[in-house]
Amino acid sequence: MKDGGFILWFTGLSGAGKSTLANHVAPILAARGVAVEILDGDEVRENLSKGLSFSKEDRDINVRRIAFVANLLGRNGVCAITAAISPYRAIREECRAKAQVPFVEVFVDAPLAVTEARDVKGLYAKARAGQIPHFTGVTDPYEPPSSPEVVVKTGEETLEQSAAKVIEYLKRRGLVR
Amino acid sequence: MKDGGFILWFTGLSGAGKSTLANHVAPILAARGVAVEILDGDEVRENLSKGLSFSKEDRDINVRRIAFVANLLGRNGVCAITAAISPYRAIREECRAKAQVPFVEVFVDAPLAVTEARDVKGLYAKARAGQIPHFTGVTDPYEPPSSPEVVVKTGEETLEQSAAKVIEYLKRRGLVR
Repeated sequence: MKDGGFILWFTGLSGAGKSTLANHVAPILAARGVAVEILDGDEVRENLSKGLSFSKEDRDINVRRIAFVANLLGRNGVCAITAAISPYRAIREECRAKAQVPFVEVFVDAPLAVTEARDVKGLYAKARAGQIPHFTGVTDPYEPPSSPEVVVKTGEETLEQSAAKVIEYLKRRGLVR
Repeated sequence: MKDGGFILWFTGLSGAGKSTLANHVAPILAARGVAVEILDGDEVRENLSKGLSFSKEDRDINVRRIAFVANLLGRNGVCAITAAISPYRAIREECRAKAQVPFVEVFVDAPLAVTEARDVKGLYAKARAGQIPHFTGVTDPYEPPSSPEVVVKTGEETLEQSAAKVIEYLKRRGLVR
């Protein structure tokens, strides 16, 4: 167990900007001397969860794996940023309860209208066309956090503003200098 | 990327003593100031690979996941000790090639006669009775390393002797003070 580690848990719809924000926040933290690893949703699916579907059961398994690895990193002094949709509240709460390091939940809050209009990866169009089953926000639920540590509104704020909110919180909490 | 991390990759038959050795070596390393995490075969199956079978394909996926996590830890300055059977040479070599930190392969070499006679978990008996398919050494192959950094003979050496071999190598290599 090494001091200084924590989990920065981003949650939000596909296209809400979780990965973008993670990739923007990471170098800011690194510049302040924090060791950072990003566990991106797509990367984790590839490396830890290939073969899992998007059913509730499989999503929960995927999220638990992310939390397991994030905790391993966290207790070794790393800031583990997770950037997976993680749509179910109960599992996020389970991850928080099991974490051996501070768990900071960041709700990357963009309305469905915004994420669907962006449709960066073209996934919403496919989901609407019935080509992707279990698509969060379209055919699968998204349960927003009840009391996240930070809420960023990526549809209204600039990336810099959202990142600043996260950093401000971490400073106030004493997790970053 | 933080200095000092490395992967200590134990490989060997079920019952060869991988976990026992890992649990003996870990506190010795910790006492020398090394941050250590053990990725034990059973624990990893539970937390990262539940649902995977013991077919070659699924074993390879499991081993790649272990390597992925070990590398994440290693590049953050941690000594990640992996203690899974990891029976296939090609995949171990792939893990070595992909590692961003020193990869130290420790062949935990106990003859099948010894591991089967011990049968700590009663698995060999079940495998012989046909109750466990794909059991390494019985109905599945084990491919010993061609040029492991360390070989320990747990059937002939004491636990302390085997651990000393590992520590000696790490000191010689400059990975431990």
